[in-house]
Amino acid sequence: METRLASANKELFISADRPTTLIGERINPTGKKKLAAALQSGVYDEIVRREAREQVAAGAHMLDVNVGAGGVDEVALLPEVVKTVMDEVDVPLCIDSGNPYAIEAALKVYKGKPLINSVRGEGHSLQTVLPLVKEYGAAVIVLPLDQKGIPNNAEDRMQIADRIVEQCVKTGIPLEDIVIDCLALSVGVDSNAGLVTLETIKRVKENYGVNITLGASNISFSLPGREAVNDAFLSMAIAAGVTCPVVNAAKARKCAQATDLLLGRDKFALRYIKYYRQNKELF
Amino acid sequence: METRLASANKELFISADRPTTLIGERINPTGKKKLAAALQSGVYDEIVRREAREQVAAGAHMLDVNVGAGGVDEVALLPEVVKTVMDEVDVPLCIDSGNPYAIEAALKVYKGKPLINSVRGEGHSLQTVLPLVKEYGAAVIVLPLDQKGIPNNAEDRMQIADRIVEQCVKTGIPLEDIVIDCLALSVGVDSNAGLVTLETIKRVKENYGVNITLGASNISFSLPGREAVNDAFLSMAIAAGVTCPVVNAAKARKCAQATDLLLGRDKFALRYIKYYRQNKELF
Repeated sequence: METRLASANKELFISADRPTTLIGERINPTGKKKLAAALQSGVYDEIVRREAREQVAAGAHMLDVNVGAGGVDEVALLPEVVKTVMDEVDVPLCIDSGNPYAIEAALKVYKGKPLINSVRGEGHSLQTVLPLVKEYGAAVIVLPLDQKGIPNNAEDRMQIADRIVEQCVKTGIPLEDIVIDCLALSVGVDSNAGLVTLETIKRVKENYGVNITLGASNISFSLPGREAVNDAFLSMAIAAGVTCPVVNAAKARKCAQATDLLLGRDKFALRYIKYYRQNKELF
Repeated sequence: METRLASANKELFISADRPTTLIGERINPTGKKKLAAALQSGVYDEIVRREAREQVAAGAHMLDVNVGAGGVDEVALLPEVVKTVMDEVDVPLCIDSGNPYAIEAALKVYKGKPLINSVRGEGHSLQTVLPLVKEYGAAVIVLPLDQKGIPNNAEDRMQIADRIVEQCVKTGIPLEDIVIDCLALSVGVDSNAGLVTLETIKRVKENYGVNITLGASNISFSLPGREAVNDAFLSMAIAAGVTCPVVNAAKARKCAQATDLLLGRDKFALRYIKYYRQNKELF
């Protein structure tokens, strides 16, 4: 299945036949004090532009944009930051908010076809987000969690995903515009977290064949030596079916390119060898 | 399925429920000029002991011992080198030779239950190696290749594996003493090489449930930036079913430990965190 996204002047296609799409995670104030303060003060232009530029330079094919810092008016701020990012880089964006009004405000200013992050398996989210996705012709990330939280097993995650996908289809959103986030929790907190996510990925791939995303670095939260865990997980997750993980592109790209090579998505290793030659300092 | 191996005073169990068993690859002269020269001259004591010691210190749970350098009399040399390694370290060994007489000579001096590397799908190999494995109560690595070479697809590799496993069982070697090598070829030479190996691993796991090995670093032969490719492949291969890869433990251990953690084989991340604390310089 192929998901088409677009900025004002660039198209992007996500599918399992192509190299993995990297969605840059860094325009998100969670755990980033400087960015949070910048968004809260309204003086964010420089830091947002720099993060956007650097992520694209590091290999991000899309950027996630989230402004959810404490005390911030997302409805006012999200469209402004989206405009700033669109002005700085030309990759498609992922509009990321838990507030449907903020999503709508950002959709109004966005040029192209964005990815909406996200809809959850609860009435309010389904009723408000899906009609917006349909109206603006966007694609949407489905989170298989509901008012009770994130299920700790693949079975229950699939039940919620089934419910949301059904609602998407009823709303008139085609399967190719649905991207499912299989949800990574810290393996430092629950030893089964990696297995549950990998199992969910496999089932989503089998049942729907849609594109799959993942906030991949959550898996190592609270652990030391996070990069080795993130890399191992990214390789396994891509092999299982993830096609567009949300990552720090500067850190994840080497692993993603090696994984694509191993999965037969890089004929004659041309992309990998080119990347190596241009980034020898990372090897 | 559980494979038991032993040195004179140490038992080792390989299974998918346990942390990945690392078989140290470095006592093998292929591509190692110094070791080859040492074996050819007969003055190998120091280098073999050092390689043995360093690999075990780096986390190898077993060591592969191969003396196949040009002009060397393996029948005379292999048992001597096996004795040297047994004298230096107490992990079980993998006796590695294409020469059945050398294997027999090494079996005569080995103390414990070794792994024999390997039997191939051709008459001579089957007829000479399997009776030795049975007679000495060893375990054996099955290579799914024959006189025509290594098949470039999982289907044909499985056919050869089927034939060898059948012959093992006829000879009286139980399934738990069979370890199948799914064969990694360079993805720099054939873009499909990784996919074929991963597919073979999945089928072997499904069909037999036996332990699976892999000369994992072959996958990156001829490429630059080999470690990133090796690590990504090791994670995917372990997730698919490899339980005892043949690796450079000093390089592969971090990735193997992270992968085990993600596959639920490291409760409370205790092993990973301990490894991190003792090897911070590697992170």
